[in-house]
Amino acid sequence: MLYIGIDLGGTGIKAGVVDEKGKILAKDSCPTLPERGYEAVIHDMAALAIDVAKQSGHAMDEIKAIGIGLPGVMDPRSGRVPFCTNLFWHDVPIIEEMAKYTHVPVFVDNDATVAGLAESVAGISAGCENSVFVTLGTGVGGGVVIGGKVFSGSHGVASEIGHMVTVVGGEPCTCGNRGCWERYASATALIREGRRLCEAKPDTALMKAVNGDPTAINAKTVIDQAKAGDPDCMKLFDDYVFHLCMGIVNLINLYDPEVIVLGGGVSHAGAFLLDAVRAKLPELVFYKTMPYARIELAKLTNDAGIIGAAMLGR
Amino acid sequence: MLYIGIDLGGTGIKAGVVDEKGKILAKDSCPTLPERGYEAVIHDMAALAIDVAKQSGHAMDEIKAIGIGLPGVMDPRSGRVPFCTNLFWHDVPIIEEMAKYTHVPVFVDNDATVAGLAESVAGISAGCENSVFVTLGTGVGGGVVIGGKVFSGSHGVASEIGHMVTVVGGEPCTCGNRGCWERYASATALIREGRRLCEAKPDTALMKAVNGDPTAINAKTVIDQAKAGDPDCMKLFDDYVFHLCMGIVNLINLYDPEVIVLGGGVSHAGAFLLDAVRAKLPELVFYKTMPYARIELAKLTNDAGIIGAAMLGR
Repeated sequence: MLYIGIDLGGTGIKAGVVDEKGKILAKDSCPTLPERGYEAVIHDMAALAIDVAKQSGHAMDEIKAIGIGLPGVMDPRSGRVPFCTNLFWHDVPIIEEMAKYTHVPVFVDNDATVAGLAESVAGISAGCENSVFVTLGTGVGGGVVIGGKVFSGSHGVASEIGHMVTVVGGEPCTCGNRGCWERYASATALIREGRRLCEAKPDTALMKAVNGDPTAINAKTVIDQAKAGDPDCMKLFDDYVFHLCMGIVNLINLYDPEVIVLGGGVSHAGAFLLDAVRAKLPELVFYKTMPYARIELAKLTNDAGIIGAAMLGR
Repeated sequence: MLYIGIDLGGTGIKAGVVDEKGKILAKDSCPTLPERGYEAVIHDMAALAIDVAKQSGHAMDEIKAIGIGLPGVMDPRSGRVPFCTNLFWHDVPIIEEMAKYTHVPVFVDNDATVAGLAESVAGISAGCENSVFVTLGTGVGGGVVIGGKVFSGSHGVASEIGHMVTVVGGEPCTCGNRGCWERYASATALIREGRRLCEAKPDTALMKAVNGDPTAINAKTVIDQAKAGDPDCMKLFDDYVFHLCMGIVNLINLYDPEVIVLGGGVSHAGAFLLDAVRAKLPELVFYKTMPYARIELAKLTNDAGIIGAAMLGR
């Protein structure tokens, strides 16, 4: 059985023909150019899908389903995308539009959800019934798999784990609330704290590492200084890990998955991050003597979006 | 199809024969006397089950399954109860013990989980695919139903919603962590804050309501004063509702259920609580324009434990 997976981002559209096991047989991409409006973008998505099928040597009627992952939310009841900020989409009838170009069934979900599904089919959580994928990027996104299937909740808004409040009354969030987990566990949080550090202590090692320009700080510069043993950045990284673990403990207490997979930019810190998280968790989990989720790093990289989207239709 | 549901508590054991729709055909009870050890308690549970079957006019081979709800945790992999504090149980082979007395299959889960299942079969969330039951009692317990079935996670420790951290570094919790939701949303939290109020302001209305004895404060005395319009208790109740809503928003962001059901002692505040929660939520939810879970009060009362336990085997 063959599937097409489409990774729809603000900059580019990637599509691939994927087999049942998550293996990509052919793939291609094109620019999104979202300012053209959703009709043009969806036209190009469909054209790209038809094109990659051809490239893989298969006809569209051999494709069982098309899956699309996008940086927004899908309402499974209406078949519409209520909003997708990066694409300037508001209430877009994506299923209806796709049907203009192909009769293959179309499934749509959030990109973090799709990446989580990819890991659970062909990545680090392969074979797990229940897993949670956490993207540590500009924000914190989540992909929850329950019983081997994507869990999107009753209104398509489940797994918004980044907006779980862990610090009541804490840092203001873009969502209007305060103290959301992503204010503390995203790359953005590391950058914010790095800048605060440079402001409070202009002679700190981090300031030197960015040649005196705090706007040049990113998650990697902070983590690299911590890795190098700078006490200020180590403190900052420890605080980051503490907050990251608080949210992970909440995921364990609520979802109790077999695996929690860390992906996104901050996860590129690798074993330095993973070891710190694994060392901190035991004192924070509720059931000290019960087994709980393994914590792992994401395994699939750029192709996770295509593979996971394809698996939506499986 | 008939089932037996057993509600195993620290004080009493209740058992009933229940039909497919959650209707109780016969029920009975006996004392638990947990100090006798688990063998005696499980013997009595099995005897009570066999007895209620007889009372209902049915033979044990007409019973499809026996379900047991208990105030602890069940490990679905081992068939053992790792701990159940109220019964002084530690690593009890409950499935094996029950098999000494009956060959009917036995299913075991946490009592809050079971109460949530009861509501989803025969109560306020009947017919819902996804629902979360929240008990606001001494602690805060949770019963999560996903796809019409109890969700217990991969290690049997899911739905520990009371130990979700909402206030990092906040009130110390019995679990060893700080800032768990139940420190702010339980009856215990209302009592603690009521006592703090009386200490800080000995002439407050609440102090008079308990005749100058703060140890007599319970959740109801605080809520009754708030209902009567006392500004100090209204402030205290508002803070309680705020913290309660923060956890509810997290449940929405993670589980996105159709219904969140409030049960347990504090829920007896009725419409006063329900209206306050419903009024507060819209400003806190992440997706302001998307539908989200209805908030309701539990409908089943004392029989929820029997009905829900019976439904574990359905």
